[in-house]
This record gives sequence, C-alpha cells and structure tokens, in this order.
Amino acid sequence: MSLLDTLTSPAQIRNLNPAELEELAADIRRELVDTVAVTGGHLASNLGVVELTLALHRVFDTPRDRIVWDVGHQAYTHKLLTGRRERFCSLRQADGLSGFPKREESEFDCFDVGHASTSISAALGLACARDAMGGDEKVVAVIGDGSLTGGLAFEGLNQAGHLKKDLIVVLNDNEMSISPNVGAISSFLSRKMTSDLFVRFKKETQNLLTHLPGFGRELVNLARRAEDSLKGFLTPGMLFEAFGFDYVGPIDGHNLTELEETLTNVSRLKGPSLVHVVTRKGKGYAPAEANPSLFHGVGPFDAASGEVHKPPGAPPSYTSIFGRTLVEMAEADSRLIAITAAMIEGTGLQDFAKRLPERFYDVGIAEQHAVTFAAGLACHGQRPVVAIYSTFLQRAYDNVLHDVCLQNLPVIFAMDRGGLVGADGPTHHGVFDYSYLRHIPNLTFMVPRDEVQLCRALATGLAHGGPFAFRYPRGESQGLKLPEEISPAPIGQGEKLREGKDGVFFALGTMVGEALEAAEELTKEGIEMAVVDACFLKPLDRTLLLAEAQRTGFVVTCEENVLQGGFGSAVLELFEETAVEARVLRVGLPDVFVDQGTQKELRARHDIDAPGITRRVRAALGRPRQSAAG
Amino acid sequence: MSLLDTLTSPAQIRNLNPAELEELAADIRRELVDTVAVTGGHLASNLGVVELTLALHRVFDTPRDRIVWDVGHQAYTHKLLTGRRERFCSLRQADGLSGFPKREESEFDCFDVGHASTSISAALGLACARDAMGGDEKVVAVIGDGSLTGGLAFEGLNQAGHLKKDLIVVLNDNEMSISPNVGAISSFLSRKMTSDLFVRFKKETQNLLTHLPGFGRELVNLARRAEDSLKGFLTPGMLFEAFGFDYVGPIDGHNLTELEETLTNVSRLKGPSLVHVVTRKGKGYAPAEANPSLFHGVGPFDAASGEVHKPPGAPPSYTSIFGRTLVEMAEADSRLIAITAAMIEGTGLQDFAKRLPERFYDVGIAEQHAVTFAAGLACHGQRPVVAIYSTFLQRAYDNVLHDVCLQNLPVIFAMDRGGLVGADGPTHHGVFDYSYLRHIPNLTFMVPRDEVQLCRALATGLAHGGPFAFRYPRGESQGLKLPEEISPAPIGQGEKLREGKDGVFFALGTMVGEALEAAEELTKEGIEMAVVDACFLKPLDRTLLLAEAQRTGFVVTCEENVLQGGFGSAVLELFEETAVEARVLRVGLPDVFVDQGTQKELRARHDIDAPGITRRVRAALGRPRQSAAG
Ligand SMILES: [Mg+2]
Ligand SMILES: [Mg+2]
Repeated sequence: MSLLDTLTSPAQIRNLNPAELEELAADIRRELVDTVAVTGGHLASNLGVVELTLALHRVFDTPRDRIVWDVGHQAYTHKLLTGRRERFCSLRQADGLSGFPKREESEFDCFDVGHASTSISAALGLACARDAMGGDEKVVAVIGDGSLTGGLAFEGLNQAGHLKKDLIVVLNDNEMSISPNVGAISSFLSRKMTSDLFVRFKKETQNLLTHLPGFGRELVNLARRAEDSLKGFLTPGMLFEAFGFDYVGPIDGHNLTELEETLTNVSRLKGPSLVHVVTRKGKGYAPAEANPSLFHGVGPFDAASGEVHKPPGAPPSYTSIFGRTLVEMAEADSRLIAITAAMIEGTGLQDFAKRLPERFYDVGIAEQHAVTFAAGLACHGQRPVVAIYSTFLQRAYDNVLHDVCLQNLPVIFAMDRGGLVGADGPTHHGVFDYSYLRHIPNLTFMVPRDEVQLCRALATGLAHGGPFAFRYPRGESQGLKLPEEISPAPIGQGEKLREGKDGVFFALGTMVGEALEAAEELTKEGIEMAVVDACFLKPLDRTLLLAEAQRTGFVVTCEENVLQGGFGSAVLELFEETAVEARVLRVGLPDVFVDQGTQKELRARHDIDAPGITRRVRAALGRPRQSAAG
Repeated sequence: MSLLDTLTSPAQIRNLNPAELEELAADIRRELVDTVAVTGGHLASNLGVVELTLALHRVFDTPRDRIVWDVGHQAYTHKLLTGRRERFCSLRQADGLSGFPKREESEFDCFDVGHASTSISAALGLACARDAMGGDEKVVAVIGDGSLTGGLAFEGLNQAGHLKKDLIVVLNDNEMSISPNVGAISSFLSRKMTSDLFVRFKKETQNLLTHLPGFGRELVNLARRAEDSLKGFLTPGMLFEAFGFDYVGPIDGHNLTELEETLTNVSRLKGPSLVHVVTRKGKGYAPAEANPSLFHGVGPFDAASGEVHKPPGAPPSYTSIFGRTLVEMAEADSRLIAITAAMIEGTGLQDFAKRLPERFYDVGIAEQHAVTFAAGLACHGQRPVVAIYSTFLQRAYDNVLHDVCLQNLPVIFAMDRGGLVGADGPTHHGVFDYSYLRHIPNLTFMVPRDEVQLCRALATGLAHGGPFAFRYPRGESQGLKLPEEISPAPIGQGEKLREGKDGVFFALGTMVGEALEAAEELTKEGIEMAVVDACFLKPLDRTLLLAEAQRTGFVVTCEENVLQGGFGSAVLELFEETAVEARVLRVGLPDVFVDQGTQKELRARHDIDAPGITRRVRAALGRPRQSAAG
C-alpha cells in the first residue's frame, strides 16, 4: 500500500515530513501516468503541478479556503488528495470522475470549469461574497500562462486590482499552454530575468562609486542611459503591480519548501497578490517532458514506453483530414489564411503552420480576437479559416454575429469537435452550435456526414462569398477514399440517399449514418423509411424537404445537437412557414447538460444512435396522435 | 454658407490654413449640437474628437489609408468630413445615416461597429491583409480608454505587439467612458504624469553629484530607493512598450498642430505604435462639458440651453422602474448584488450605486467578466443581478452557459433594451436573446409585458434558486400604478387575458399589448381571438398552451425577436413533443439584421404591430392549407 493509498483528506498531508512528501509526490506521478495511460486525459499539465498542489493543500485550510483552478485540466493531483483516490480509475469515464473540477463531486471543488481564463473572475466573486458575509477564508485562483492571454483573465485582473480584495492569484507559468504560447504577454513573461539588468545597473553604479574618482559626468550619463532603457527594465512584477497586485516570484514550482514558504508569506498579505510559479510540463515522466504537446491531452498509451496506442489500420481523424485538405487548398488559393486560438495540434494545423507560416496565425487562447481579426482580414480580400472547437466558438458568439455576419464577410468557421466529444464531458460537448448559430442572419451552415463531405464543405466555404460555418466530429473518419478533385457543393442543397414510402429521415452529419442504419433495421419490420442528408442546416433545402414531407407525411429529424432551436426546430419552422402539414418526430439531445462517456455510450444513452432512432420511430408509428378540437 | 457646407471630401481639408481649420472645427461643433439636438444621439464623445478627426484626415490619405473606429459612436465628424454633410440631418432615422460607421454607407468607413473593443483586432486583420497583398496603406485604430478595459482589446493588443505589423493605435483618453472608468487599467492610465517622478529622481541625482562631496553612500541609497520604487515609476508608455508597441504621448487632443505633428511622425514608424491622446468629452459645448454622462447618448434637447426635452407627464422608463425596484429589493434582501458593465445610467443603477455602494459593482466594459464574476458571487450565497443590455449580453454567451447555467447558479440577468431599440440600429437591437438563451439548460426566462410584471420578474428571479433571465424594452413604461407588495410569479405559468373561440394569440412582452389590440380589431370582422400572455419563454406553460391550442386549433405566436429559434419555435417544438396538432402562425422578426428607425416604425415595417398582426391573421384564415399525402 503506497502512502497515497492511505490518504483520505488533505488534512493528513499537513503532517507529513519532507521525505514522506517526496515519496507522496512520486506516488502521485506514478498514479497519474498509470491511470491516464488507461483512461486517456490531460497528463503533462498535471505532472507539472504535483508539488504546487501539495503546497496549496498544505498551506491553505481546504476546503474552508478555496482554490479555483483555471481550465481545470490540471486538477488531477487535487482530486487524488481530496478523497477521490479510489474512484480515480474511473476518470473521464461514464459515471466516473470528471476530468475537471466539479462542485457536485467534492466540497473541495469550488467552481466548475473546462474553458480557459475564468478563474480570476470567479475567485473575485468568491472573495467579494466572503467579505459580504464577514468570512475570512482565503481565495486562491490558479491560472496558467496560456489562460492569461484570454481577455476574460485580463478583465478579471483589472477589476481585482481595482477592488483591493484579499485574493491570491497563482500564475502557473510553464511557458507552454496547449500550443507554445504566442503574443506579447508571453514573450513578456519570459522576460522575468531581465530584472537582472537592473541589478547589473546597480552594481555598475556601485563599482563606479567605489573605484573611480571624479566620475560626476559618468554617473549622469548612466542615469540618462537608465532612463532611456527604463522601458526595457519592465518586469512581470511591475506589470502586475501596475494592475494593483503585490507580485512575488518567479519561484521554482518543483521546490516544495520554497513554494510553501512563499505561499505562507503571501497568505498573510492584505489585498490582491500574484505568485509567479515556474513549472515544467510533464515533470517526472520522460516521454511527457520530451513531448509535452503530445501528452497535453492524450489517449491511452503504454506507460513504460510512452508509445501512444493506435489501432493498426485505423482511419485518419477528421481533424487530420481537415488539416491536410486545408494545406492543399491554401497552396492553390493565396487568399486562404488559417487561424487557431492556441489549438494548433487539436485542430490539425501543425503542417499548415510549418508549410505556410506567413499565412498562419495562432492568436493564443483568445477566441473573440480570432474571429474579429478574421473579420478584418476578410474585409480586405482574404479568406480566413478560423479552425476552432465548437465549444470554444461559444466564446466568440458576439464576434460571429456583430463583426462577421452583420457585415456579411467571407469568414469560414471550421468547427472541430462538433456534437458529443466523449470523455471531456459537459464543458466540451459541441452540442449547442446549431442553436447558437442558426438564428444569425447571413450565415450559411453546412454539416458534412463524412470526410468526403468535409473536404467539400471547405471548398464550398472558400467559393462562397459570405460567412460560412461547418462542423465535424471528434474522432476517426469513415475510412473513405478522398477524391482527387474537390468541387464546392451547391449551397442549401440536400441529398436523398435512400428511398422509402412510409416516412423520411432528415439527418445531418453523424446522424446520417445512424439514420441509414435505422432505416435498414426498420425494413425488417416492414417500415420503409427514406433517408435525406439535409447537408445544410442553413439554408435548408426547402424544395427537397417539402417534397419529401408531402410525399410521405412523416418526417423524422436527426441531429447531434440539443433539440431546442436546432435542426428539427428549423424543419418545424419551415413547415409552419409553408403551411405544409406533416407529422414530425425530432431526434436529438434533450435540454440538459450531457455527461461524459464515450461518444458511442452517450449516443446510446440519449437514443440518438441507430437502435434508439429505430425505437423512437417504432413507438411513434404505434402511437395514436391526439387531435385538436378546432 | 459655412466652410463645412462647402466640403465634399477630406482631400479639401488638407489645404486649409490654421484659421480656416479653427473655423471649420467651430462649424462642426455647431452642426453636431444642432443635429443631435433634433435627432438625439451620441454627443459628448463626438464633440471630444473634432480636432482628432481633422488631424487624422489631414495626416492620413483616406480612404486609401484606413481608420477603424472603436464602438463608432464618435464618428460623426468623420461622417461630416467624408461626403455625408447633406444627409447628416437624417442621422439615426429610418433610411438615414447610421449613428455608427457602416461600410455600405461610405468607402471611408472600413469596419462596421457598434459594440466596444473590436478596433485593434479588426485593424490588425486589415494590416495583415495589406501585407499579404503587398500594399502600403496605413491602418489606424482609434480606441477610447473605456473600450480598452474590454478583454477583446487586450487580446488584440497582445497579438499586435507580437506580430510587429505596421499599425497605429490612437488611444482617445477622455478619462471617462460611458460611466466614469473603473478598474486598475484606468487608474493606471491616469498615472501618466508620474513619469515626472523619474525626472525628479534624475534631478535629485544631479544635485547630489554637483553639490555634495563624498556622497558615495548617499548615492547607493538613492539607487536602492530607486529600485524599491521602480514599480511606482511604471508609466502607460512602459506598459504599451511591454506589449511591443512604440508609445508616444500623452498629447493634447485639442491642439491640432501637436496632433498633426505627432501623427505625421508616428506614421513614419515601422511596427505597431500607440499614440496617447487626451481629449475632453463634450468639448466646446458647455452643457455637455458640465454633464458628459447625460450627453453621452442623449435624446432630443434644446441646443441653446442644453435642456433635455421630456414630454410632460410621460411615464417613467422601464429602466428607471427597474433601478428603483432593485434598490427596494436590495434593501430588503442583503444577498442582492448589482453588477453593470460600464452602463450605470443606461441600466438605471445610479441610485443603487449611491445608496448601496458596497453591493454595487461596475466592472468596466467587460461583459464576460461581469457574468463569471456573478457566478463566483452566486457560488457563495449571494444573489447577483447582472443589469445589461440584451445586445451586450451576446458578448458573454459562453459565460452564461459555461459559468452560470452549467452549475445551475442563481444569477439574475436583467436584460434592458430587449427587442427593437430604435435609432441605434442593427448593432444594438436586442432581438436575438430568445434564440441565444432558450437552448441553454437550467435557464429560466421570463418576459414581462409591462412594468408591474417587470417588478414581478425581479422578485421571481430573487426567489428562484437557479439562473434566471428577463428582458424588457427600451423606452417608456405603460404608466401603470405599481403595487405596494410585489410577489414572485409561479415559474412557467402563463396568463389568459382574453377569451376567444376562433384562435389564440400566444404573446410575450411588448407583443402582448399588440396582440390584445389586434384581437380587438379582429372582433370587428367577426374573428374572436383569445389572448394568452405566455409570461415565460422557458419553461413554457405547457398545460395552458396545449389546452388553448386544442380548444381553438389555431395558434398565433407573437414575439419581438427573430423567428429562428425563438418563442414561436419553442411552441412548435412543444406541439411536436406532445403530438398535439394545431395550426400555427408565427409572428416575429425575419432572418435579417433589422435597420434603424423608431421602434414604432420598425414594428410596423416588419408587421409585428397590431395592424401587421391583424393582417397576418386575416390572411392566414383566408388561405387554404396545403395538405400532405401520407
Ligand atoms: Mg501554460
Ligand atoms: Mg473614454
């Protein structure tokens, strides 16, 4: 039984001696590697904060004191220390532990999270609430250097510095967020050592003073030089001081003694303070230290070798096909520009970045800017492609509406991780995009059902002269052969894939395959359903959909999106507008936040897979309709 | 004929002499005051940038060089100088000039805008596009100090400093955005004069050097003191330099010569530069200088006296009733916290701020932070009310979803300016909120039809334990007497206001009154329509709506929102779910960005007023339905 196995509460670690702590840290790292090797998950970031997490729980009186994790994909050690050791093997699995902090999971988790840059704002709220209630607990936000590039973090910093509440921000600076950091603030943080310049200046002054006679003029020159270069002396400390924070650091994030001493001192300060901690991603596990980007979010791998499991002969991911196609199209069209918000590998843009660096922009964790920047590019003849996860584009809803669509600009939104994403759970499912984009005027929204259609969507977006979005799922493609020539699809044209007289499926994206399978199954029961790939969420193929509805009188819409305001809702609207009567059954996700689990499990659980759809249709056809009196 | 009247292009002002320019500036100010006195609009900000706008058009070769205005409510002088003098009297009126830059209006307007903090991102996009195309035009972003508190501006600054593109940012610092600025960055900007401290330090050093013998030790102390206080020396210049910008300023924004010289010098610099210009809001018009907040966005007023017209006996605005009620409720409930994003007066919170300052937070133009900060407060026993315009909450869509609703936190969103706002036009209409909020799980959404219901909505939100939104319109209330006691409404319960056998109106908010009027009118034609105030967009009153639908068989939904994904769409979904058959006609706004005009004009134009609704119902009842084959 390891030391880690004996822990049930962080109170216990407050009594350990240095040797025991070292042993515990090693236990934790072993557990992190062994578990994530099986479950997949965020590894590098978690390995980097083992000592920091130990120090936080030793110095602060958790759960009374409150730790707010930014993004939260670095909270595994926190979970291991706070009574979740036994359930840790269920990490990221259906009904298991979340890969992120979750209030309902533990009183030690004080703010749910998954998206970046929220911690300072949330912690400030907790601090203000504490003061309103006369409490005296400490509030600590732990934020990475990457998250600090998000405007929201800046907004939080700005108000926190102004309000002067007791609040501790721990800046976990591993000099690499998900992709290596970009932006001025990053190169600026790395300038931390230049405060040495000032030290050198001071020493030089002292030398002059002690060794040279009659040096009046020299000294004046020195002062002048100092003034000229004062700007160069600016340290992160000065920046945060300017925001109203007391700054301490940088300190070594793997030296537990130094961490604890510093945090103890800082915990006694009044007002907002910022502790700058330098950590190393992947610390203590050689493969992750060597390739932190690969081990940022990783699938199952071999713990001994660090080899990532890949089923032999598995088809390439949608992401990689997107990335490859984008490079090809960019080579043929000089207007094409690729933009990512700190997700180079996640969106498959590594090759683009290498081969066409002058047309590639990583803007940092700054989705709003990514979109408005794209609008600026599109205003002046370019064809920007914003490659972004569906869930993260939520951050830029207003920028899509106000900066792109209002001006009808040709910006292409390539939304990866559309639909259910699996293990990352409710903070990451891309199941709202139909609903948050469909009502925006001027936007065209295509949903490819496979990788061939994905390539066509990209070509269609490029050929189109206005705002254009398409979404595709996380995971493996269908293994289809891609055509040599990719031609744009006609805007708003669906495709009938199967005949059937008893009713018709209108499906989008991943649901097309499920509908085809359901139709096949229903045939066995004598129910003949046609299948139409609507291809476009907006505009709908009115001619095809109305004709099929009128032909069969029974329509089943299938979507991997919440039902509220989604595709089925658009079909209902179409029928209302045209006063066409047809019975409609909408299949999609309910009005709840969907939990974690594999994509397959979740589709089954919510009856949006082929068996579920089959069941729904069977029940609908067996059920008499209520009828109206009027 | 004034000098201004003779201008048709900014090329002409490049040849004017100083005396003529002074005359022109006076002409412009007169025109601004006289026009806005009639049309209403943004006055103080425009009066503040007359010289700056002249300087920009004289130094830069517009429209070849590009000026991107942030927010854009300060672009009136720009419009007067760029061929829009004659149409200026149509400002903010139906089919007239927009109160904001608009590309379709003029080639001198290079980015459409209305929301804050977009200019740096957009200008950076234009600069990158220019470089991609081998151009050499200048790109200038003009941003106010208020807009700089928005995280988006920071994201833009961060990437611009990193990319080193030729780009000029003009910081128009009037030390007051819409409400007086808040936040660390603001107190920091006002620190600009502390660079004097350094000058003083240098002088002190020189004094020591020239006057004192044997001062070695003194000087070492001085150096040490300098180091200690170096943080205090930080100037805005150093901050922007840290971001990678060349900084110039602060300069007097009403001294045309100084402005032109500085801008000319800056236009020759390579890389990103920032010019810090200090202006005075309302400059040159005494009433606006004395009360810039009142004259920020103002209705018609008397130009001579500065008295704002208020029809005698007009009922109070919804905004003011909200503000008053909020204070009353806060006095009775210590958990209630009010939050605004730089819109104290716009959201009616002046009194709250004065009477309960310890429970009032103005976070600056930082809507995202406002919401996540509220989530933090709600996590710990408080009942935050985020008072915000519907259109600005778009900026915080992800924060509503990810930070509030995912955790089911009791944050109250009081959305002012819901529905059509009138003269501010497409960037400001609050006509998407039903669609962008309805699909978020856990959210309750109430829509008061009058001020009595508005007060009830607030009480309902306070009593409710989860996320709660309500929206109310810009403008005057109905003049009803408010009850002494305000009790919460039962969640999800509608109200039948009128009987009728031939069909039923389901209406929300402002549309309830229109539906009642339409029903009255239709009676004359022998059509008896019932009227139901649905009261809640979410959850719907299923029992009442289904019963009425079944009773009459004909439902007309009425909403001041886009039809896509809105209230009518929710009703269609309800009927699909329950397999209830009823004919539905949805009345609402179409899938376009609605132009400016008075609220009344716009409702009429889009057939969502009583006559429009009457016409729609008449037509629907006269038209035979197409029927399905199956
Ligand atoms: Mg990092
Ligand atoms: Mg300002």
